[in-house]
Amino acid sequence: MAGNTFGNLFKLSTFGESHGAAIGGVLDGCPPGIELDLEEIQNELNRRKPGQSAIVTQRKEPDTVEFLSGIFEGKTTGTPIGFAIHNTNQKSGDYTHIKDSYRPSHADYVYDQKYGFRDYRGGGRSSARETASRVVAGAIAKQFLSGLKINAYVSQVGGLKMDKTYHELDFSLIESNPVRCPDPDMAAKMEDHIKDIRKEGDTIGGVISCVIQNVPIGLGEPVFDKLHAELGKAMLSINAVKGFEYGSGFKGVTMKGSAHNDAYNTDGTTKTNFSGGIQGGISNGMDIYFNVAFKPVATVIQPYETIDKEGNRVTTKGKGRHDPCVVPRAVPIVEAMAALVMADYFLLARAINS
Amino acid sequence: MAGNTFGNLFKLSTFGESHGAAIGGVLDGCPPGIELDLEEIQNELNRRKPGQSAIVTQRKEPDTVEFLSGIFEGKTTGTPIGFAIHNTNQKSGDYTHIKDSYRPSHADYVYDQKYGFRDYRGGGRSSARETASRVVAGAIAKQFLSGLKINAYVSQVGGLKMDKTYHELDFSLIESNPVRCPDPDMAAKMEDHIKDIRKEGDTIGGVISCVIQNVPIGLGEPVFDKLHAELGKAMLSINAVKGFEYGSGFKGVTMKGSAHNDAYNTDGTTKTNFSGGIQGGISNGMDIYFNVAFKPVATVIQPYETIDKEGNRVTTKGKGRHDPCVVPRAVPIVEAMAALVMADYFLLARAINS
Amino acid sequence: MAGNTFGNLFKLSTFGESHGAAIGGVLDGCPPGIELDLEEIQNELNRRKPGQSAIVTQRKEPDTVEFLSGIFEGKTTGTPIGFAIHNTNQKSGDYTHIKDSYRPSHADYVYDQKYGFRDYRGGGRSSARETASRVVAGAIAKQFLSGLKINAYVSQVGGLKMDKTYHELDFSLIESNPVRCPDPDMAAKMEDHIKDIRKEGDTIGGVISCVIQNVPIGLGEPVFDKLHAELGKAMLSINAVKGFEYGSGFKGVTMKGSAHNDAYNTDGTTKTNFSGGIQGGISNGMDIYFNVAFKPVATVIQPYETIDKEGNRVTTKGKGRHDPCVVPRAVPIVEAMAALVMADYFLLARAINS
Amino acid sequence: MAGNTFGNLFKLSTFGESHGAAIGGVLDGCPPGIELDLEEIQNELNRRKPGQSAIVTQRKEPDTVEFLSGIFEGKTTGTPIGFAIHNTNQKSGDYTHIKDSYRPSHADYVYDQKYGFRDYRGGGRSSARETASRVVAGAIAKQFLSGLKINAYVSQVGGLKMDKTYHELDFSLIESNPVRCPDPDMAAKMEDHIKDIRKEGDTIGGVISCVIQNVPIGLGEPVFDKLHAELGKAMLSINAVKGFEYGSGFKGVTMKGSAHNDAYNTDGTTKTNFSGGIQGGISNGMDIYFNVAFKPVATVIQPYETIDKEGNRVTTKGKGRHDPCVVPRAVPIVEAMAALVMADYFLLARAINS
Repeated sequence: MAGNTFGNLFKLSTFGESHGAAIGGVLDGCPPGIELDLEEIQNELNRRKPGQSAIVTQRKEPDTVEFLSGIFEGKTTGTPIGFAIHNTNQKSGDYTHIKDSYRPSHADYVYDQKYGFRDYRGGGRSSARETASRVVAGAIAKQFLSGLKINAYVSQVGGLKMDKTYHELDFSLIESNPVRCPDPDMAAKMEDHIKDIRKEGDTIGGVISCVIQNVPIGLGEPVFDKLHAELGKAMLSINAVKGFEYGSGFKGVTMKGSAHNDAYNTDGTTKTNFSGGIQGGISNGMDIYFNVAFKPVATVIQPYETIDKEGNRVTTKGKGRHDPCVVPRAVPIVEAMAALVMADYFLLARAINS
Repeated sequence: MAGNTFGNLFKLSTFGESHGAAIGGVLDGCPPGIELDLEEIQNELNRRKPGQSAIVTQRKEPDTVEFLSGIFEGKTTGTPIGFAIHNTNQKSGDYTHIKDSYRPSHADYVYDQKYGFRDYRGGGRSSARETASRVVAGAIAKQFLSGLKINAYVSQVGGLKMDKTYHELDFSLIESNPVRCPDPDMAAKMEDHIKDIRKEGDTIGGVISCVIQNVPIGLGEPVFDKLHAELGKAMLSINAVKGFEYGSGFKGVTMKGSAHNDAYNTDGTTKTNFSGGIQGGISNGMDIYFNVAFKPVATVIQPYETIDKEGNRVTTKGKGRHDPCVVPRAVPIVEAMAALVMADYFLLARAINS
Repeated sequence: MAGNTFGNLFKLSTFGESHGAAIGGVLDGCPPGIELDLEEIQNELNRRKPGQSAIVTQRKEPDTVEFLSGIFEGKTTGTPIGFAIHNTNQKSGDYTHIKDSYRPSHADYVYDQKYGFRDYRGGGRSSARETASRVVAGAIAKQFLSGLKINAYVSQVGGLKMDKTYHELDFSLIESNPVRCPDPDMAAKMEDHIKDIRKEGDTIGGVISCVIQNVPIGLGEPVFDKLHAELGKAMLSINAVKGFEYGSGFKGVTMKGSAHNDAYNTDGTTKTNFSGGIQGGISNGMDIYFNVAFKPVATVIQPYETIDKEGNRVTTKGKGRHDPCVVPRAVPIVEAMAALVMADYFLLARAINS
Repeated sequence: MAGNTFGNLFKLSTFGESHGAAIGGVLDGCPPGIELDLEEIQNELNRRKPGQSAIVTQRKEPDTVEFLSGIFEGKTTGTPIGFAIHNTNQKSGDYTHIKDSYRPSHADYVYDQKYGFRDYRGGGRSSARETASRVVAGAIAKQFLSGLKINAYVSQVGGLKMDKTYHELDFSLIESNPVRCPDPDMAAKMEDHIKDIRKEGDTIGGVISCVIQNVPIGLGEPVFDKLHAELGKAMLSINAVKGFEYGSGFKGVTMKGSAHNDAYNTDGTTKTNFSGGIQGGISNGMDIYFNVAFKPVATVIQPYETIDKEGNRVTTKGKGRHDPCVVPRAVPIVEAMAALVMADYFLLARAINS
């Protein structure tokens, strides 16, 4: 209720600050008998971890997940899956410069206001490090939903926007470059742009697009828990996200109904898919696709003016090793949250509609 | 769990199809002792009801709310507030043409697939009529949160986009025209455009912007239940919504961190507000503002081809009295859902952080 | 969250005070396509209603349920079932004597303390009238779970305790007498006893026993949501209940493990059933049976001393038409709550374990 | 939803099998700024741990809790408190005798039926070891609720029943003997009895009584979430519990209303307390007291007949080191669950009624 649990039936509760002993979670409601490929789960974590390429933060965090329960003889038992990722790169000393002042557009100020004090060592609970737990649980969700294909990729970095629809892309190229953009030419430009931004000590935003394929018909609940509403909440709960659109999205606003309506083929599929695979909040079996907007990372390696706890003006400068652009590492997070939503709604539909 | 409940502490459960006896809801968790202005609640309903102007559906539905419990001597008692809005305009005969075929981009097909059959009289539970219950509950939430100002307005209809920020607008003009756009010149253009669209028997999309002011610092939970994530889910749960963005939104993607960061004044307010009043998922006391994208209404009064239950091709035509553009009537719905979120998160913060 | 919702997937939210316009509820999560016998639902309500026999309150309340949504062509649609029972016997004048003083062992005092004021007309939300909504929803649950047999009956009134196990009883005799005790001799004694108590203007407690048969194996969750824990909560949530025991119950305390253990037959059934059909919180397919203790009704038609709002001593006397013993009318409530729990846990098991 | 989470606002999710790497939990919703005495938390765990006296299981499990998050500079931060208790006494070899057969009155059979297979090493998730996580969270709840006094004690072992009310007892004597019965004479008899039972290789049941003092008025919700209903569920969720009663309990059944009603003093307290500190589901400021019935432990060190997975008869014998009577070690568990309920309902009341 204080917001560290996601999902109703396939339910993840997470814990952990960036500079405590460990982060981790409890995944409850995963059905029994799912054979888990633990190496694949670690692979997903590796896609998110720092230091994986030249365009992400150069922090060294192994991010090795340890499973504590819920798995026996390689299979899920139906009991909660507890797991931990120990923090091995805690340098509290790095953060003394932020103990008494508030970094702009970080959560420092609101934490102090809301909780009376804060764990000032590196963002505490608002650190993006928390999302590693989501990636672990999402990787399990993916294996549970082995029939679905969930692919996210970077479609925009700053002003560089890919002008191809996902039908024109080869998803197998997503991992072929550090940006995770499946268009190699655009990926190269984005990579250069991110490097330039980093040289300036600055940061830049981006967009991640995600496509979910092979979705069964009938997932999603008609009113408050529409499938896209939950996907939207899932994405907006990721650090730095400022917007979500699915199907025709914001562009659909300018269309007329006669053009926007998706005419049926005789097998129930549709000729177009402006609906984005969801009608009335319920999956119709067509591809689900959506975009997620990420703002530029707030930590810049430039001098800036801010205030301290007493409201005095101070001038300081970002330190440490931060991402110049968050989207390359956020791709597996988007996929993980999408998988958690789909697993939860799959179970819900099985309960009520089977 | 089948998705007809919204909120955790300030919690609304709704029921009702467009062509049953009544729609309504149960609002649980409203604190006791709130003096309710029942006329003001009905006024909010009237803002949503059909037939209020020349540019909305001409159906005649009085939409009178009857309160059944939870109010005594003009005040909330702290017990659940039950209410009903009786359906008085049920013409089931109007809908026989859709009994056996599937209207494109409606929920007909997925309902039949998910539930095995459906109440085919007018959209059943997926009818936008359901949102009247939200408006009732939202109006109560507004009165509970009397210190907050929640103003939504139409900022775009089709390609007509207002280019003013909310600081340049006079919210008292929102209700001065049937479009609910506070820029009179733009409102006139939008009204003309909607009338043209209606003459074509077509429909058009739009954008509603919303601003929440006087927000206490500290509402929102840091991880999955970020304040903007819940606002996003609330908005995406409204019929026809395809996208949500807050603060800098999708445009913020192209900004650099050094420009996007909101520098502090010495009193903790910020000089700019690209954060949109929320940092790390928690309100910082600045204005919260966001945009909601609505697709064009799916019911067009033009002949179209579709399929029947057996998968045969049929040609049919939309009948009845429908909205050519949904956004003018959706303004009070956006405000209602925003108010429900704010009330819920206010109670949550009072529980944990007081 | 303010406690007017029961169940996770098969979920009932209720509203209504004894002296408002109506009581009622929203049942969400009932699967689609269940053919409902509406007359049977009303029959269940009639089992609970006042005035049905000489040993219950002689108030006249027709308690007719009106369904507002979620049912179409005689079947559940899968959407929320809204329903209302209008209050037709509101005599607010009857209750002016309790407006300013606190009836002992009623909720008057705590309501004023908790909510600041109360709807003093007849107990408000703490009136047992609220349980009528549970009976409606429970009757639907019974029809959904048509394979299960749920039988409750009165096994004790005051000191009169039936010494037969349920195996010795003929459940078809439960409705053969106004006490709802399937042992005719004991029923006659209990009836006489209740009549004597009423003549004294006094009240008496009792025990209801309940047996659930034909239960599938595997319902219930191992840790906090053990099947008997949820049954216990369900029963303890009924007005006037002071205790719950299942299987060997409080008597089992005196047994040795070697005698208490239920040895297996080769088909997985057990030779004895001290476990009460539940092991480790999960149904094992044997009969579930439990006892529910009800205190004597607090309203006595005798003079008594109490205090008013200012803490002054006042002498008053119960008025109105009250039950001398609550258990005969509580039998359908116990069955209804049992049915709601079983339906909810059936759906939950179907989600996770199918 | 699969039942490993307890509480709404003060919310505990647990994980872990007896023979996995660790058990533990995530406590979400604990308010910030609570100074935690970590040694005191470990002390509570020590009260539950095996090997602490001659009358409990002689297994050696240090049960040392490690906190992973949510605590900074000795205080709660308001973020989730993750913790783990590593399993150090895993001897999987001890359990091969139960891999293929079903121990009577254990959860072995229903687990195999529900989940398709089970972690057969020592009871898996149904092991009472899981309750250690509850004790950790409950100890935190106690420190949050430092004004409340929560005392549980053993009041019955087999046929040995203490005939004193709690008013006649000195709670400081509870920890003075291994039985945890505050009546030294009775404690000595109980201890002897348990030793005799153990010599027989048998087990015996018992009752734990609990008293909660200094409770604020107004905790509890009127309908489904009555305070005693949640306490009942909490207690019934503890392994081996078969019954719960509060206030006058099952004995109250035989009383007349005129005798059972608790007359008011002029300050709102009551002269008697048959209500058990709760009226209409809401605390009235008087002491809350209740009894919890525990069956005899199912594991007996005697030969017994049972069935294997194929339904063949097999004769086997309990091995290992088990408790002859569970109640002495269950005392801190009862207190912990009581504390979790009180903390949750305290926050809930603060949200809605403040």
